Amino acid sequence: MNTRFFNGRICTMENGSDIISGELWVEGNRVSYVGPGKPSDIHFDREIDLMGNLVLPGFKNAHTHSAMTFLRSYADDMPLLDWLHKQVFPLEAKLNAEDVYWFSYLAILEYLSGGITANMDMYMFPHEHARASIDSGIRTVIVGALNNFGGSIEQSERDYDYFNNLHERISARFGFHAEYTCSPELLSEIGSMINRRKAPVYTHCSESKREVDECIARTGLTPAQWIDSHGIFNYGGGAYHCVHLTREDMQIFKQRNLAVISCPGSNTKLASGIAPLSEMLDMGIPVALGTDGPASNNCLDMFREMFLATGLQKLSHDNAAQLDAMAVLKMACSTGATVMGLSDCDSLAAGKLADLVVIDLHQPNMQPENNILKNIVFSGSKSNVKLTMINGEVLYEDGVFHTSEKPEYVYRKANEHARRIKEAL
Amino acid sequence: MNTRFFNGRICTMENGSDIISGELWVEGNRVSYVGPGKPSDIHFDREIDLMGNLVLPGFKNAHTHSAMTFLRSYADDMPLLDWLHKQVFPLEAKLNAEDVYWFSYLAILEYLSGGITANMDMYMFPHEHARASIDSGIRTVIVGALNNFGGSIEQSERDYDYFNNLHERISARFGFHAEYTCSPELLSEIGSMINRRKAPVYTHCSESKREVDECIARTGLTPAQWIDSHGIFNYGGGAYHCVHLTREDMQIFKQRNLAVISCPGSNTKLASGIAPLSEMLDMGIPVALGTDGPASNNCLDMFREMFLATGLQKLSHDNAAQLDAMAVLKMACSTGATVMGLSDCDSLAAGKLADLVVIDLHQPNMQPENNILKNIVFSGSKSNVKLTMINGEVLYEDGVFHTSEKPEYVYRKANEHARRIKEAL
Repeated sequence: MNTRFFNGRICTMENGSDIISGELWVEGNRVSYVGPGKPSDIHFDREIDLMGNLVLPGFKNAHTHSAMTFLRSYADDMPLLDWLHKQVFPLEAKLNAEDVYWFSYLAILEYLSGGITANMDMYMFPHEHARASIDSGIRTVIVGALNNFGGSIEQSERDYDYFNNLHERISARFGFHAEYTCSPELLSEIGSMINRRKAPVYTHCSESKREVDECIARTGLTPAQWIDSHGIFNYGGGAYHCVHLTREDMQIFKQRNLAVISCPGSNTKLASGIAPLSEMLDMGIPVALGTDGPASNNCLDMFREMFLATGLQKLSHDNAAQLDAMAVLKMACSTGATVMGLSDCDSLAAGKLADLVVIDLHQPNMQPENNILKNIVFSGSKSNVKLTMINGEVLYEDGVFHTSEKPEYVYRKANEHARRIKEAL
Repeated sequence: MNTRFFNGRICTMENGSDIISGELWVEGNRVSYVGPGKPSDIHFDREIDLMGNLVLPGFKNAHTHSAMTFLRSYADDMPLLDWLHKQVFPLEAKLNAEDVYWFSYLAILEYLSGGITANMDMYMFPHEHARASIDSGIRTVIVGALNNFGGSIEQSERDYDYFNNLHERISARFGFHAEYTCSPELLSEIGSMINRRKAPVYTHCSESKREVDECIARTGLTPAQWIDSHGIFNYGGGAYHCVHLTREDMQIFKQRNLAVISCPGSNTKLASGIAPLSEMLDMGIPVALGTDGPASNNCLDMFREMFLATGLQKLSHDNAAQLDAMAVLKMACSTGATVMGLSDCDSLAAGKLADLVVIDLHQPNMQPENNILKNIVFSGSKSNVKLTMINGEVLYEDGVFHTSEKPEYVYRKANEHARRIKEAL
């Protein structure tokens, strides 16, 4: 399938925020040309007139628990620990594989409708999220969720090898849930595995103040220091949330080549706090954005995350100049790819994978065109997502999903399965 | 024009958050029936199958400067005072009446696409915003913007009477820009006018800490105390922002029957702070929501405001249970109407004006249906706005505007006029 996009504007993310007027060609699953219009002898299966609209590298959702859609709006406006212990854990204990398939599929539809072309998912039944990803067409990085209550070192290694060889749109990263759900012995074993496999690792870290306080009380170290003391960060990777990182923690991140994956929507709704993104960026730590799961946020929408990323830095620094919108757009579209290990999805250039979103500028919130990229961050919304292409395939266009399952069927299945779980409680 | 909506769910906002399954009938510009399906001998010009979708009273944008669309994304990521003095004021000085018409029209299109059925606007050339409102079909409350640099008491009274008798969808409220742009003499004259006219008044109040500190240094009083000392609040009304209200200020609001109009998006982007909404609500002060102008926010989107209203209270109180989503939905749809003086637009019941929005639940971010109203606040987006009806007329439906001007023409005019102003600088 070859596609020619013409008469558009393309923010390639190759050189800052430059915008090229012209064309973007897709041959198979890769971009073959970006530049001014020119003749071609390629056979294009489809030629799309962009009518001046903007093409961006797709949004990268670098942290999510997709299948938690079943808990969306089920238990909100509650204190964090009540929420976890009284609502989330008892219901999660009832989950089976088929549930996860449909709950993940629902999340994937939301990703597509919001221009999200890749997601980095940590949850139970990862085979089901991988299956829903393969079926629907999205690109997925499966992250291990090892902890005291589930998984093993052997399982982690087996999954890692399995998912990295399963499908061209699926890859895997080592991961564990968090230091507070892993015993010291398990952390030591994870450290050995990482140093044996020489691979990056991903985990929750310093999401809430209580988590940090309890780790210090237990170990004398912050979560980042405690994890690092097991050699776990020796090959880089990334940590989710990082709301309460200290200056010393950030030094570890810098030394270990670790990225921060910030989830400002979830941190807001769960009252976890505002991560010091500006300080991290000043130290040269890569920052990507994630939605977190739909029970915490509850929206799987990178437009919300982008506005909050810049807005909350402005609020917490008491300075409207803090964290420029352009830096945030780069986090969402480009840095996220690098952090997720998707180095061919970070920009739009010949040879890169064709994962892209077309932003409809013919809507009132995108006008006038004083600065179209700032418009995306400050006044953009998922209603501006005109088309989402992944791996060269158009999966969403003008409100219509081109997925293996029709959305109404997915909604029905998701509601049925959610009802069963609630009734089983 | 009579319209029958059937096969839907209606959140009337009459009794908390109850949802009725059934029908809503519109005869002329008013709702004539809400309830279960039943036979009727009314001639309906149109019958709309809601397919299970939700009807809500439209969102009320209780504070905006609509025509500031021309400054959207022109000067962001800047400190507040630089932004005002170096960008906003010099460009505003170049504005003419025709500019304001097109810039307002652009904002109105954005309101309609986001389910906003009424706006309370304070800006220059109010006749032009009224004209754009009449032409486009939206409901508008014009608020006076009197200050040292523009307007007079005579003009305020003339405008008040004129706009209150101009058109069924236009009304007017007395207003002045802020205490810091009005001399003590002018504030005294405003006090006399208000007590002579026995009418509510609206103004900016305690938006930034600096504004409060400077008022105290100048007068020995907080902005609320200083304004109140002139008798200006004797007949109620409302104040915009109120980020830095003291406990004593809130007592004044309570005594004077004043409402707070909170603009969390603007307060975030301009780093003004987080208004103490929970404390206000605990004291029984009515709280409405507004977007503020599109140069400050930059989005005219009540979904953003609703999420921020609840989310920022959770953050600032370090408590995920703070400010329930349902309270926020009520602010946006119902309290806003009361605060704006639109008592017939606060709920959906026989005799009320037919200002409503249809929320599309057949989208992934609205599924599963654990709690459809919480879904709207926590995961809703303007992409869920299926239809916007004002005064019995459908003005927006499935992405299509039924306004006097086509959107592409409005975008062209807005860009042309924005260019002229920038070139004139």
